[in-house]
Amino acid sequence: MSARFPLVALGTIALDDIQTPFGSVKGALGGSVTYFSLAASFFVRCGIVGVVGVDFPQKHLDFLKGRGIDVSGVERASGKTFHWAGAYEHDMNSAKTLKTDLNVLATFKPKIPREYRNCDFLFLANIDPTIQLQVLDEIKPKYSLCDTMDYWIESKREELTEVFRCVDGIIINDGEAREYCGTPNLIKSGRMLTDIGGGKVIIKKGEHGALFFSDDEFFAAPGFPIANVLDPTGAGDSFAGGTVGHLAKHGVLDDNCMKRSMICGSVIASYVVEGFSIDGLKGRKKGDIDDRYNLFKRIVTFDAP
Amino acid sequence: MSARFPLVALGTIALDDIQTPFGSVKGALGGSVTYFSLAASFFVRCGIVGVVGVDFPQKHLDFLKGRGIDVSGVERASGKTFHWAGAYEHDMNSAKTLKTDLNVLATFKPKIPREYRNCDFLFLANIDPTIQLQVLDEIKPKYSLCDTMDYWIESKREELTEVFRCVDGIIINDGEAREYCGTPNLIKSGRMLTDIGGGKVIIKKGEHGALFFSDDEFFAAPGFPIANVLDPTGAGDSFAGGTVGHLAKHGVLDDNCMKRSMICGSVIASYVVEGFSIDGLKGRKKGDIDDRYNLFKRIVTFDAP
Repeated sequence: MSARFPLVALGTIALDDIQTPFGSVKGALGGSVTYFSLAASFFVRCGIVGVVGVDFPQKHLDFLKGRGIDVSGVERASGKTFHWAGAYEHDMNSAKTLKTDLNVLATFKPKIPREYRNCDFLFLANIDPTIQLQVLDEIKPKYSLCDTMDYWIESKREELTEVFRCVDGIIINDGEAREYCGTPNLIKSGRMLTDIGGGKVIIKKGEHGALFFSDDEFFAAPGFPIANVLDPTGAGDSFAGGTVGHLAKHGVLDDNCMKRSMICGSVIASYVVEGFSIDGLKGRKKGDIDDRYNLFKRIVTFDAP
Repeated sequence: MSARFPLVALGTIALDDIQTPFGSVKGALGGSVTYFSLAASFFVRCGIVGVVGVDFPQKHLDFLKGRGIDVSGVERASGKTFHWAGAYEHDMNSAKTLKTDLNVLATFKPKIPREYRNCDFLFLANIDPTIQLQVLDEIKPKYSLCDTMDYWIESKREELTEVFRCVDGIIINDGEAREYCGTPNLIKSGRMLTDIGGGKVIIKKGEHGALFFSDDEFFAAPGFPIANVLDPTGAGDSFAGGTVGHLAKHGVLDDNCMKRSMICGSVIASYVVEGFSIDGLKGRKKGDIDDRYNLFKRIVTFDAP
C-alpha cells in the first residue's frame, strides 16, 4: 500500500489569452489548479484533478510533471480546452474578462485516482460547488480548504455554504468575502466566515496582502512590494498553492504554521506577477523563496515603542 | 529665551456635517490640523496654525487646550468657519463631498507666533502649496513633512513639487501618490516620491495600512483590524499626527523611529474611526495606545520558515 498523497487539488486547467499594458500572450498555460500546483510544488508532491481538451499541448503536461506534479487525475477529453481571455488596463488590480469558453469544462466529471483518496490536504479551487462537494466526499482528506468566485455566490449560494461548512478552511478574495457576507468590512466578513466554515479563513487582497482569521488568531500580511507587475493572472491561485503546499509539507493546519505558510504563498505570488502566464516561476528554486521570505520578515518588523 | 516647540502644524480647522450608514452629525469639530494635533498630543506639545470664524464654539478651542495643544497660532477672523459636508455610503473607504464652504479659509494668511519659529518638527497639512512654502520659509524648522490633495496636484503641480523638494518627508494617500506619479503601482510611486522629496515617504492606504519608503528602507504596516467603523473622517490626518507626534517626541527622523511612529499613527487612527468626528479619541489615554501597539506587533509577527 502506497503512502498517502500529501496534497491533492481540484480546479481548472486553461489556455489563456492575456493583455496587459506591458504585453500580451495567446494560448498560454493557465487555470487555477495549474498555478496552484506549480506554487505548491516548491514544498510537496501535489496531485491534480482536472480536464484538458485534445488541443492541449503535451509539453505543458510534461512541464508540470517535470516540477514533480502528479497529473494522473488530469483527463484528456474530446473537445477544446477551457479558454479564458482577459485584459488588464491601467489599474492592474482587476482583469476585464473578454471571453470565457468552458469547452470540455462544461461536462467535466472528475475521475479521482484511487491513490488520491484519504490524502492529507485537499484544495478545492474555484469550480461548481456541487463538484467541490462530490470530490470532497469521494477523497475524504484529512484537511480540506476551498476557494470560490462571485458567479457561485450569486447562482449557488446554498451549495457554496454547504462547501464552507464541510471544509476546514476558506481562501477567498476580498470582493468575494464582501459579497458573500453582505458587508464592506473585511474584519466582519472574516469573522462571519470563520463562524460558518471550519474555523480558518484567509481573505486575499491582491497588492494589499492577505488577512487570516481563526477562532483564536488574527494575522495580517502585507503584499510583497513589486514595482514591475507584468501580469497579475494566477497571483491568487499561486498564493493559495504556496500557502497550502507549505501547510501540507508540515502536515498540520495550526495557526502559527498558517502564518508562515501565507508568507510563502505571498512570496510565490510575487514571483508570478513578474512574468506573463507562469513564466515568473520558471527557473525559480527553493532558495529564491527563502530569500524573499527573509526580506518579508524585514519589511514588517518594528521595535517596541 | 524659551525652549523650541517640538512640533508645529499648519492646516484646516473645520465644522463638519458627516453622514455614514451608522448615523450623522452636524457642525462637528473637524479639519486636518484638528485631527493631526489631537493625535500628536498623546506624545508631545503641538502648536497649531489655522483660522476659525466668529461662529466657531470657544469650547472646541478649550477642548484642544485641555489636551495640551497650543492654539496661539489660531486666528479668529470675521466670517464663518471652513465647513465640509460629506457622506460615506456602503463602502466606507471613500467619502462623497456634498459641500465645501471655504469661508474664512478663502483669505487665510497664516500669522506665525514668534515662538513657533525654528521648531523641531513642522507638519504642513493639506492646504494651498503656496501657503505651505511661505510657512515653511518663515518657521525654518529642523525637520518638515507635508501632505496634499488631488486638487493641488491638478491645479498647482509646480508649486507642490517645490514643496516636495523642500520638505524632509511626504505623507500622502494612495490615490494622490498614483495621480502625482502617473502610475497605478504604489511601489514605483513611493520610489519616485523618495527621489523628488527629502527621502522619506509614507503612502497611506486606509484600511490596508501604510507603506514607508526611504533611500535605505521599505516598511509595510497593515491596517489595525476594526470591525465597527462608524466614521472614517480624519483617519488619515490622525495617522499623520500620531506618526509625526511620536517622531517629535523622540526628536529624530530616522527610519527605525519612523516605523514605530507609523504604528502609533495607525493605532490612533484606529480609535478615531470607531467614533463620529473626534469622539473616538475622547477619554483615550497613552495606555490605550500602548495596548493596541502591542496587539499590532502580535498580528504581524510570524516565525522563521
